[in-house]
Amino acid sequence: MNKKRIGKRTIRLNNMPTIIAASSIVGPKEGQGPLKDKFDLILSDDLYGEKTWELAESKMVQTVMEMNVKKANKTLEDVDFLFGGDLINQLFPASFAARELGVPFFGIYGACSTMAEGMCLGSMAIDGEYAKYVLCGTSSHYCTAERQFRFPLELGNQKPMTAQWTVTGAGGVLLTKEGKGPKIKYIIPGKVIDKGIDDGNNMGAAMAPAAIDTIYSYFQDTKDDPNSFDIIATGDLGKLGKQIVIDLLKEMKLDISKVYTDCGIEIFDLEEQDVHCGGSGCGCSATVFCSYIYDKLIKKEFNKVMLVSTGALLSPTSTLQKQTIPSVAHGVVIVNE
Amino acid sequence: MNKKRIGKRTIRLNNMPTIIAASSIVGPKEGQGPLKDKFDLILSDDLYGEKTWELAESKMVQTVMEMNVKKANKTLEDVDFLFGGDLINQLFPASFAARELGVPFFGIYGACSTMAEGMCLGSMAIDGEYAKYVLCGTSSHYCTAERQFRFPLELGNQKPMTAQWTVTGAGGVLLTKEGKGPKIKYIIPGKVIDKGIDDGNNMGAAMAPAAIDTIYSYFQDTKDDPNSFDIIATGDLGKLGKQIVIDLLKEMKLDISKVYTDCGIEIFDLEEQDVHCGGSGCGCSATVFCSYIYDKLIKKEFNKVMLVSTGALLSPTSTLQKQTIPSVAHGVVIVNE
Repeated sequence: MNKKRIGKRTIRLNNMPTIIAASSIVGPKEGQGPLKDKFDLILSDDLYGEKTWELAESKMVQTVMEMNVKKANKTLEDVDFLFGGDLINQLFPASFAARELGVPFFGIYGACSTMAEGMCLGSMAIDGEYAKYVLCGTSSHYCTAERQFRFPLELGNQKPMTAQWTVTGAGGVLLTKEGKGPKIKYIIPGKVIDKGIDDGNNMGAAMAPAAIDTIYSYFQDTKDDPNSFDIIATGDLGKLGKQIVIDLLKEMKLDISKVYTDCGIEIFDLEEQDVHCGGSGCGCSATVFCSYIYDKLIKKEFNKVMLVSTGALLSPTSTLQKQTIPSVAHGVVIVNE
Repeated sequence: MNKKRIGKRTIRLNNMPTIIAASSIVGPKEGQGPLKDKFDLILSDDLYGEKTWELAESKMVQTVMEMNVKKANKTLEDVDFLFGGDLINQLFPASFAARELGVPFFGIYGACSTMAEGMCLGSMAIDGEYAKYVLCGTSSHYCTAERQFRFPLELGNQKPMTAQWTVTGAGGVLLTKEGKGPKIKYIIPGKVIDKGIDDGNNMGAAMAPAAIDTIYSYFQDTKDDPNSFDIIATGDLGKLGKQIVIDLLKEMKLDISKVYTDCGIEIFDLEEQDVHCGGSGCGCSATVFCSYIYDKLIKKEFNKVMLVSTGALLSPTSTLQKQTIPSVAHGVVIVNE
């Protein structure tokens, strides 16, 4: 093993890429939630002036990336790579945003793990000096996701209580080698884990084992203390998945409960907003990280954060073929040092 | 710009990752084509013993990766990352293969550019010493792609003469820092280019401008001589797209015609096999590279190769929404040095 690897899974980034900007846009419902004061933009209409929801989602991605470049006093010409993807077939939103942005584009798909996946890849590109500026980000949209994965909204279907609510929102970061801002110190690439859950309305349970695997690998590799973190945030496990993570890690003699939250619980008021188990979608961990968490890092109220975005790699086709739900969770550790 | 960047787009890999193994599996029709003696395995049945075509495609991916590890006398435990993806919604084949392989997985989507996209990302991971062994690969399957992007096969629809035939096949490579085999010297990440083509049955024309942009960027950046290459191979532009590339590059004062081919033309006998403009799909450039081209590199009959896999980033949804077809082409330059 080479010197950048700690243990079996964790990678130490010796140059510690800096997150010099982070931006977020959310839809109207997310804009009524507990984080409403933290986002850069709250849409008044989830069509965002476009003719279709997919085009609106694409415009959200494009706009957060443009916001990032502007906040850092850079131009899109300065950006070497864009890592982006989303839940929609063939990455319609990300691909069309990449066309408008004109930046060399690596399309990625990790379902709702895309934010951390992009940060893993983007930070290797910066740390290794393959790029000077990298944009990473992702999006989801309640209306595009429901139509594609579940039922057309017009049917007004009811959801079981284990279901979650796909966040309408996009989040993105701008990474570079130097500069002011929190730094990415470790990345923990995820394995695909499948414990046999086959209920597409219970993604929290399907994805929890992948989050557990990634979090546990980090602590095994580094012998770090969970309580040295200000926050460990999974992507979108929701209320049920969060409890599974706490319980199973405790059985594995790892107690993260004091610092652990889930972005799907942070973004909505679960009592008031009728979202069942909480938020989900690529945009969930992306917008929570790029607003609330990044803000706390900038203010030095958080100095050590682990973001573990979690993705369920099912498709409507795999479900129809009676397959179980493989999941993946990528982790990044971000510090003020 | 840092020292690894040559010009605006090209990245020089100073450690030159070695392709220590490459493997390919194809379907029965590809196994009757001109490259029939070059593949590791030709399936007698495109279901490959599975119940569905998607599961068969997944098994092809899993098998080529296992073949690579075996050829290099390694085990899956030695592999740090898998970069994989395919054309199928939510990367059903790649995700399920990653589950079986148990290797940390970065899902990527670049449509038919996935082979070169994975090699770009995988070679940065090796060159930068983030990983010791990386698997990259992709697949396509005629039956999964037709059903998803066009019409159910049962309808027996006719195709226009500009259409291509999706290759049933999977190809993958194993990269590491040292060892015997051809080396990746340069990577050229692609921009998303859209010249306004909106005909999903004319992908060659849609993707040709992206290939042109990537190839032209390399020669601008490096001032290299096209005729110093043994072969420059685009992914799957087919007969029509290939001619567009030759013609437009000539107008830009770059003549690659003496060394240029397209994998979609190599894999099938266009006269005899009724494939119209040629082969297409992620598996097209993947299987042609991992069989015919890699074989020539190993035998030192080729010593300098550019692979430019080309992807059309359309989706059935974007087409229904009357959008044009954004495309991307990622390039890798492989040498015996």
